[in-house]
Amino acid sequence: MAVIGASSNPDKLGNAILANLIQGGFPGAIYPVNPRESEILGLPVIPDVSHLPDGIDLAVVVVPAGAVAGVLRAAASKGARAAIVISGGFREAGRTDLEDGLKAVAAETGLRIVGPNCQGINYLPNRLCASWPLLTARGPVAVISQSGTVAATLGGWASEEGFGVSALISLGNQIDVSESELLEFFAGDPNTRAIAMYLEGAHDGRQFLQTLQRVIPQKPVVVLKSGCTVHGQRAASSHTRSLAGRDEVFEGLCRQFGLYRAGSIESLYDSAKAMATLPACPGKRVMVVTSSGGSGILAVDQADRLGLEIPALPAAAAAELKTVDIPANATLSNPLDLTVATAVQYQNALDVLQKYDLADYFLLIFGDPIPGAAEAALRARDRGGAGIVAAYLGGGEVEKTERYKMHSLGIPVFPTPERAVQAIHAAEWSARFRRLHAEPPRDPSVF
Amino acid sequence: MAVIGASSNPDKLGNAILANLIQGGFPGAIYPVNPRESEILGLPVIPDVSHLPDGIDLAVVVVPAGAVAGVLRAAASKGARAAIVISGGFREAGRTDLEDGLKAVAAETGLRIVGPNCQGINYLPNRLCASWPLLTARGPVAVISQSGTVAATLGGWASEEGFGVSALISLGNQIDVSESELLEFFAGDPNTRAIAMYLEGAHDGRQFLQTLQRVIPQKPVVVLKSGCTVHGQRAASSHTRSLAGRDEVFEGLCRQFGLYRAGSIESLYDSAKAMATLPACPGKRVMVVTSSGGSGILAVDQADRLGLEIPALPAAAAAELKTVDIPANATLSNPLDLTVATAVQYQNALDVLQKYDLADYFLLIFGDPIPGAAEAALRARDRGGAGIVAAYLGGGEVEKTERYKMHSLGIPVFPTPERAVQAIHAAEWSARFRRLHAEPPRDPSVF
Repeated sequence: MAVIGASSNPDKLGNAILANLIQGGFPGAIYPVNPRESEILGLPVIPDVSHLPDGIDLAVVVVPAGAVAGVLRAAASKGARAAIVISGGFREAGRTDLEDGLKAVAAETGLRIVGPNCQGINYLPNRLCASWPLLTARGPVAVISQSGTVAATLGGWASEEGFGVSALISLGNQIDVSESELLEFFAGDPNTRAIAMYLEGAHDGRQFLQTLQRVIPQKPVVVLKSGCTVHGQRAASSHTRSLAGRDEVFEGLCRQFGLYRAGSIESLYDSAKAMATLPACPGKRVMVVTSSGGSGILAVDQADRLGLEIPALPAAAAAELKTVDIPANATLSNPLDLTVATAVQYQNALDVLQKYDLADYFLLIFGDPIPGAAEAALRARDRGGAGIVAAYLGGGEVEKTERYKMHSLGIPVFPTPERAVQAIHAAEWSARFRRLHAEPPRDPSVF
Repeated sequence: MAVIGASSNPDKLGNAILANLIQGGFPGAIYPVNPRESEILGLPVIPDVSHLPDGIDLAVVVVPAGAVAGVLRAAASKGARAAIVISGGFREAGRTDLEDGLKAVAAETGLRIVGPNCQGINYLPNRLCASWPLLTARGPVAVISQSGTVAATLGGWASEEGFGVSALISLGNQIDVSESELLEFFAGDPNTRAIAMYLEGAHDGRQFLQTLQRVIPQKPVVVLKSGCTVHGQRAASSHTRSLAGRDEVFEGLCRQFGLYRAGSIESLYDSAKAMATLPACPGKRVMVVTSSGGSGILAVDQADRLGLEIPALPAAAAAELKTVDIPANATLSNPLDLTVATAVQYQNALDVLQKYDLADYFLLIFGDPIPGAAEAALRARDRGGAGIVAAYLGGGEVEKTERYKMHSLGIPVFPTPERAVQAIHAAEWSARFRRLHAEPPRDPSVF
């Protein structure tokens, strides 16, 4: 791989990206290219693309806009098959002429180009971090984004709380490699279990819908679409020049094609996390087990709003709960409010509850510093059947440790009951669509 | 102060609370009371309340429900004027008889009681942490909560990101000290600039509204009200036995009395943060300056949804921006998309923008690891006039450092553009209410 425009100046992107490729542990050879330096971050520098060895696979480009077409052509002639163009200054800056130059290179050489004006690519299974900030936590969600920052934000959160991602792709101006091609790739990627997208508009609407038809039956997809309002559309047209389109139309297409729509960056992240980890449950019944009465109420409020069901606790289960070690003050209903409880008491409650076919999802709300929460959740998850979701809040350092542990076990954890319930809704909606529409709609010509 | 039911067993609340009082740095004398131990956490133990020295101010009670009335009476006879009853097992567990016993003690002795069934009190100006987890970061927001976990969650977040709180009050079953008395207290508290409340229902509706009439002109208040849906109301009635009331009525009262209503725990926190830090601006115009095009679009989408204004960038300002050092690719509109920018370039842009009367709020979105962001925000804030709000995302470790710095300077920072805009909306709504209703409505008999 070549990093064209690598720099020893730590304020430059060409430095950050090279550093992240090295620190991310990319196992292949990395060639920094820069005419004015001889060594960067310990690697010998190639002065010019024409001096690169033949047969490089990938070029990461961080040179000024005017120089990009030239270096891409040179890289292609050295055998490069793909390029990530980080450099900005193209269509988004009114220079469609420069962008046309890149398109011409792609057309003439067959070089596949991601970008320009993008934040690069992370693909964790290959330990490729051609982006910033550095990301090393591997997980089951692939992020495809028309905003580098949105991608980096999801990556940062996933890293911070030990959930990880399989890939982060920042599309930028998308002159060649499109969101549809990437969707298709991740649908078949065994390292990816759910796909999160940030879109301002589809590159090619019909192709996008045709791709969704093939992808949704294989993998759940959640989208955050911006440019939904008058001012938002205006801003979107400045950013990636994409035509945002009428929001009602997009909303209708999401429902028709089974694309779950997130309302915020956080919801995009939460939804993907739940979709990637929860089983496809047959119904929408949620049983809440909590140490925090208030959080339990907030959870069922949110469940009611989103159309999830809160089944009553069966009398037999309530009677059996009285025979096991849970707090005497517990409120035997749904939510099951354990009041102040240990992880073992959660476990005791779940051992009883899971005997009854009472819920499709169990939401475990840990509202105190409760050590051992991860073990309790794991035991419930390993019993199979229902989806196990945790909300952990008000738990200080214990919370952080337990959240990290749960994520490493593939149990999704959310910072509030409201966000946990919204994430359940995402997984449930997506699973239901796939169940009801085993054959997705055939005619994408409505677009 | 006495901690009645202190324990050397680290699994017991009586241990955690004593530890937090000590580590929180409470400057007065602390007397652990326990009949079976002689020393706990280095403090000599008093075997029985009757052995306490005369003239203690406060009793923190963590003994089983049946023993609480007795120790409270004994504490009152040793001069205690106030008690925090952490213990549960009262009305919420069907034992109204035990709760009546506590009420009788309050009536007979004049002892003021917070709780029972609560998570205690933090009052940072006095370094009092009679709660858990430990909290030491002092800030301008007071939290009054009918859920201990919701209070602890806000405290944890405020601590984590260096924003801090002035107080956290967990009300529990609220047999004596009410949310209205605490509202009144914090309205007059010079250490508090905004009040965040989590409510399931008002203790005394009429008193609550009368209090709001007096408080809102002095301090902004935001409320998260749960029990809004059928299942939520049912759960609320189990938790604190409060009558949640019809949600439309509560909604109407909020609008009439100037109580800003948050939709989630995160929004409760964000709103209070903005209210406590932003000036009362005369209008609702928001100018967005961003390094992330996508984040800028999400911000204006959210602003449009919430009825905030996105003024056009005046031609003169756009012309002047061309004369200063900002990225050549910048999109000169609102949002002002700087693309990849340094903190100095934000500063250069703001130096120009703030010459024009174009906005009431500036939302600075830092969508990369941008060191020096805090200095740029501070310079803009210190120019006076408009409210300065930051969203910081996708910035890794640099983001954490800068966020902490901004909070220590009193500049509110949010993790996403959507949350930042919602927080601006909270501050704007509250300031507008106070401006338009300098005299709040007089007749609370509508309740």
